[in-house]
Amino acid sequence: MKPIKVGLLGMGTVGSGVFTVLKRNQEEIFRRAGRRIEIAMVADLDTTRAQAAAGSGVEVVADARKIIANPEIDIVIELIGGYGIAKALVLEAIEAGKHVVTANKALLAVHGTEIFAAAHRKGVMVAFEAAVAGGIPIIKALREGLTANRIQWIAGIINGTTNFILSEMRDKGLDFDVVLKEAQRLGYAEADPTFDIEGVDAAHKATLMSAIAFGIPVQFDKAYVEGITKLGAQDIKYAEQLGYRIKLLGITKQTAKGIELRVHPALVPAKRLIANVEGAMNAVVVQGDAVGTTLYYGKGAGSEPTASAVIADLVDIARLHGADAAQRVPHLAFQPQSMSDMPILAMSEVVTSYYLRLNVADEAGVLAKVTGILAEAGISIDAMLQREADEVGGEGATQTDLIILTHDCMEAKMNGALAQMQALPTVLSPITRIRKEELA
Amino acid sequence: MKPIKVGLLGMGTVGSGVFTVLKRNQEEIFRRAGRRIEIAMVADLDTTRAQAAAGSGVEVVADARKIIANPEIDIVIELIGGYGIAKALVLEAIEAGKHVVTANKALLAVHGTEIFAAAHRKGVMVAFEAAVAGGIPIIKALREGLTANRIQWIAGIINGTTNFILSEMRDKGLDFDVVLKEAQRLGYAEADPTFDIEGVDAAHKATLMSAIAFGIPVQFDKAYVEGITKLGAQDIKYAEQLGYRIKLLGITKQTAKGIELRVHPALVPAKRLIANVEGAMNAVVVQGDAVGTTLYYGKGAGSEPTASAVIADLVDIARLHGADAAQRVPHLAFQPQSMSDMPILAMSEVVTSYYLRLNVADEAGVLAKVTGILAEAGISIDAMLQREADEVGGEGATQTDLIILTHDCMEAKMNGALAQMQALPTVLSPITRIRKEELA
Repeated sequence: MKPIKVGLLGMGTVGSGVFTVLKRNQEEIFRRAGRRIEIAMVADLDTTRAQAAAGSGVEVVADARKIIANPEIDIVIELIGGYGIAKALVLEAIEAGKHVVTANKALLAVHGTEIFAAAHRKGVMVAFEAAVAGGIPIIKALREGLTANRIQWIAGIINGTTNFILSEMRDKGLDFDVVLKEAQRLGYAEADPTFDIEGVDAAHKATLMSAIAFGIPVQFDKAYVEGITKLGAQDIKYAEQLGYRIKLLGITKQTAKGIELRVHPALVPAKRLIANVEGAMNAVVVQGDAVGTTLYYGKGAGSEPTASAVIADLVDIARLHGADAAQRVPHLAFQPQSMSDMPILAMSEVVTSYYLRLNVADEAGVLAKVTGILAEAGISIDAMLQREADEVGGEGATQTDLIILTHDCMEAKMNGALAQMQALPTVLSPITRIRKEELA
Repeated sequence: MKPIKVGLLGMGTVGSGVFTVLKRNQEEIFRRAGRRIEIAMVADLDTTRAQAAAGSGVEVVADARKIIANPEIDIVIELIGGYGIAKALVLEAIEAGKHVVTANKALLAVHGTEIFAAAHRKGVMVAFEAAVAGGIPIIKALREGLTANRIQWIAGIINGTTNFILSEMRDKGLDFDVVLKEAQRLGYAEADPTFDIEGVDAAHKATLMSAIAFGIPVQFDKAYVEGITKLGAQDIKYAEQLGYRIKLLGITKQTAKGIELRVHPALVPAKRLIANVEGAMNAVVVQGDAVGTTLYYGKGAGSEPTASAVIADLVDIARLHGADAAQRVPHLAFQPQSMSDMPILAMSEVVTSYYLRLNVADEAGVLAKVTGILAEAGISIDAMLQREADEVGGEGATQTDLIILTHDCMEAKMNGALAQMQALPTVLSPITRIRKEELA
């Protein structure tokens, strides 16, 4: 069988990883795939560096369109990133009848509907295992491994930067800003870390998992996105005392009223496996009605872990290159004509439980007022922790922390109760509200 | 597209699960697969019970060969178990040109070479996701998700019964025999638990993973198999004090000299995720050269989790029913003409580290003699724990426990040193030796 020919757009960290791994493991991969996978062309603006990385046997060009125009190329790997030129090139490659492999979660989460429709029309595959959780084969697990199941919910640690920061904050008792600087120094966070720390990257990935799990179109614009920038060391400590860890979770869940799609910090019981995922590692919990709870863990980023996912997609495509649509796994797991129009719920309609920290005046009647407001709103309390004033503020302190864990209630109700509590004269600072997920 | 027709052999726990899940989630599965999957016939000796479970629309027969002889049937699901009639029926189904889905790890680990060769000849698929780790899509992860990797090692908790027993022994400080009885009472262990507690079931699964990971034939007869029946509560306690948990692991590893394939209890650092897998749950750690460490966790047994895996295989086959061999994933992950003849190493050639517990006379010079023997054999000590005699045996006791953790050495060397230590007059009871796996 003749080799399948690949053109690689973008010879950065992941591109070099794809090159390195394909070369190092070429025999192993050939023994599995039954045919050679050959990177015949590379496009990168820095042709000198790219040529040095690719070696002399590979044609390196500055203009990606030369790859797309080459009729010998079967598959285009897009590793440029972003929504701009990457989008244009992916669509052009599809129009030219190439299969596409991409790690570009932002592009697919925002423009996936357009891209998958174009691919469907042209009868080509767009594969994106590398777009979610790096080397963990979670897209394959969801699209193929769990096809028997009605997926109930997914909750994942799908951003390594923020998990590294949260792990360090807990380990060292430090505040967010301090740890972020350290993470940047160590290369775990980028110079502009906004997409990571504000939860946007995790939301891109959660959006893709949501589509695949429930057969809905990608709808990044409907995702609720909250990052970790406001988390304080004291909340991590209080959570610990109550038996919880705080993780940035990407969550998507099917309910009778619609689909939840949200990224935010959450308290998770410390005894859950996912609560023990530390550092830059990723993990995704998938709850299916037949299989029960499953978890997938590994490196969510990095050159070779991401390359591992890109190459797995290449092998899949090498096998199914000439197959007809019915023989291929649909892009979003469900057949295009069988997509669901279940709406994505507004955050105010989400039902979850909460951790609240109120900085209150240390005087009689405060607790009664706070619990009165919650009772009035129909929100029941699961646990409470009141610190002695002098433990929190030192001797003679006149304010203290009141920590409340609630049972499930609708976010809209909680918003109302929070506004009322915040208006109490004895509540001295903005209330901290962190959602709590039992993942049971 | 017309429905794909399935015949089910064996309407027991898993068979009923397949039936229930296929029915409950038929719309969801159809939306994914793009065609209906219909169980058209069921074979079970107890036709009355099977008919009641299957409903009136399904033909129930006592003679499985009626299913195999039916030209309308595309796929045969074998859920009978064992090596006898199950083997004959699987081979007959293959000869009749049917695809086969089976959860029968014992059959495939022992007779896989014959079965896969027959399937290859006839151009049919034999799918067995359900044979390893129940609902966890680990076969798919290994065969397809990690194709880019040279797999370095796999270590798994792949027997729920023994993990339940070990979890209970640790939680409650009880000895093996007591917990086994409890496990039998609760239905976590069978009336004859031999296959589970002696490690045979885990070895069947490890054998299958070994073949898929390294492209070698299934070779159950070469596996080293040691169960948990000799583990005492005190070893679990000592391990805990040293920062370890004891788990029954199925391990397979590629080394320069050959493949390791072994099942035995092992100390695992308590901080590893897999050390925290409790109760009847399963988890498999896979180390690949590109992806690094990945872990897959879920229910390893039970009606619906196993059915989840069986149905995922049905959907895969429904898609690739008419495809040619090059479009399908090879049975053992590697193309049949590209299998490796790497030998499986004898246990004496395995390199690992050890936990040793010596019950010794509480007198001067014992430690010097023991450490002298280890030094002579070139085995270096990683950590040591000597209990005060009265802590172990009460006041006035004249014997004590000496716990030694070693660094890596070859098993043959350890066997020699153990024999010498055992011969010391001051070593009062049989030495306990448990292997230790850092899984780093």
